[in-house]
Amino acid sequence: MLGAIEAGGTKFVCAVGDESGKIIERVQFPTTVPEETIPNVIEFFKKYPVKAIGIGSFGPIDVNKESPTYGYITSTPKKGWKDYPFVQTLKAAFSVPIGFNTDVNAAALGEATIGAAKGLDSCLYITVGTGIGAGAIVQGKLLQGLTHPEMGHILVRRHPNDEYQGKCPYHHDCLEGLAAGPAIEARWGEKGFHLVERAEVWDLEGYYIAQALMQYILILSPKRIILGGGVMKQEQVFSSIYKYLPELVNHYVVLPELSDYIVSPGLGDDAGITGALMLAHQAFQEN
Amino acid sequence: MLGAIEAGGTKFVCAVGDESGKIIERVQFPTTVPEETIPNVIEFFKKYPVKAIGIGSFGPIDVNKESPTYGYITSTPKKGWKDYPFVQTLKAAFSVPIGFNTDVNAAALGEATIGAAKGLDSCLYITVGTGIGAGAIVQGKLLQGLTHPEMGHILVRRHPNDEYQGKCPYHHDCLEGLAAGPAIEARWGEKGFHLVERAEVWDLEGYYIAQALMQYILILSPKRIILGGGVMKQEQVFSSIYKYLPELVNHYVVLPELSDYIVSPGLGDDAGITGALMLAHQAFQEN
Repeated sequence: MLGAIEAGGTKFVCAVGDESGKIIERVQFPTTVPEETIPNVIEFFKKYPVKAIGIGSFGPIDVNKESPTYGYITSTPKKGWKDYPFVQTLKAAFSVPIGFNTDVNAAALGEATIGAAKGLDSCLYITVGTGIGAGAIVQGKLLQGLTHPEMGHILVRRHPNDEYQGKCPYHHDCLEGLAAGPAIEARWGEKGFHLVERAEVWDLEGYYIAQALMQYILILSPKRIILGGGVMKQEQVFSSIYKYLPELVNHYVVLPELSDYIVSPGLGDDAGITGALMLAHQAFQEN
Repeated sequence: MLGAIEAGGTKFVCAVGDESGKIIERVQFPTTVPEETIPNVIEFFKKYPVKAIGIGSFGPIDVNKESPTYGYITSTPKKGWKDYPFVQTLKAAFSVPIGFNTDVNAAALGEATIGAAKGLDSCLYITVGTGIGAGAIVQGKLLQGLTHPEMGHILVRRHPNDEYQGKCPYHHDCLEGLAAGPAIEARWGEKGFHLVERAEVWDLEGYYIAQALMQYILILSPKRIILGGGVMKQEQVFSSIYKYLPELVNHYVVLPELSDYIVSPGLGDDAGITGALMLAHQAFQEN
């Protein structure tokens, strides 16, 4: 039996399951401070004979195994979690191999293994919700370099009619600053689910995401792109992306049929927790 | 003995050497039409007992080994080279394993093996010259997905004082359209080497390249970035990049010391041809 943690900024999902991605039991609770949240995690897993645990975590995190702070959540503004030794804490409680990566890399792994990119050695998973993040599988492996990708903060060109200044505390009007859920709410004055009927909201959203996809495609050339997260539940955004992306790329690279290339998660909201099971399996095998 | 071809849009370099990157003999000639250029290539290699040949080619090219047009130069506007079966032609002449990749991927491989990124499993090589292109090593392998990267055409934000419309036939003011050599000449009315004293030229150049590097860093997180090509011989551009990049990133990710992170090619102008030797070596080993 394998353990999985999807550690989000808002909620934690813990599950036990197997390497095929089958979830046997799960629980979820709000992310508060580590002193409160982590005992809940430990209590859940104490009930099961887990042989490894995989963590897909909000970040930034340190995924460099040679670093002294490997396994830490690093510079998050989230109270209590800055410089938090996530892997070490779990390891102290369970003495089993611990897999550790970003929530979005976990989701990419889940989707590449049994989801919308099953059978492909390359894919990109993007979540558009409270924030924007992405994980990637490149030549069969989770993308990692100096550190994990931070693709949500790339620069985009502002739409000439968009006067909203942007919400990112670091870059103001980067992709996340202009297109994540809180930016939509701040620009239009209401939460997204109250804006369903306003076509211009989702047209603009697709305008920004299409720009980001162009950059990702030219740089990474993924074999499939999976768009998840709360904002992407508005199907209109896909239509807007399918409209703007070909205009931007302008035949410079040949793209596959867009409705097959840029898709919703095959695992729905379970991409992250399923991927965390895969991370547990990888950790077990590497150990 | 290994053979290497650096096939550029302006000139071809052919060399023989060994797997350590040592070049024993080389020749170069202008790139005209295949009927003229390729016989020169064949004539050169006929003199040596090469056991494999590596090609780093201008593109776009088809690097997907499962594709019916693998080994072709594909949609280039360069007269005579569109849909040219490069690998097949060499294979017919020499019956040895042929390695085939982009010129910039070859350069990235050369730099990662014995150049400025020696010992690293991750680097990005960018050339800024007649065009802008980049190759990358990710987790020890040349980056490849649906196809090879086309990083020179990513979108950048125009400088508010830059009124030049851009020179890219596909995207007008993408990175290549605003920052490659021909754009510099068109914007300022003179070739780059006549503009050495004009600080504003190189400041603007660094402004655009820094934006591109921010995107590459957030998406790929390379362990070192190598900037080659004719334009980068203006050292002032590095200073401009070192100024603008930290302003853009704004501490969102922790960058290494920039003068160590963003560097000139360790192999100088030989990165591409040396990398083509490595491609030959890889092809020989895989065969």
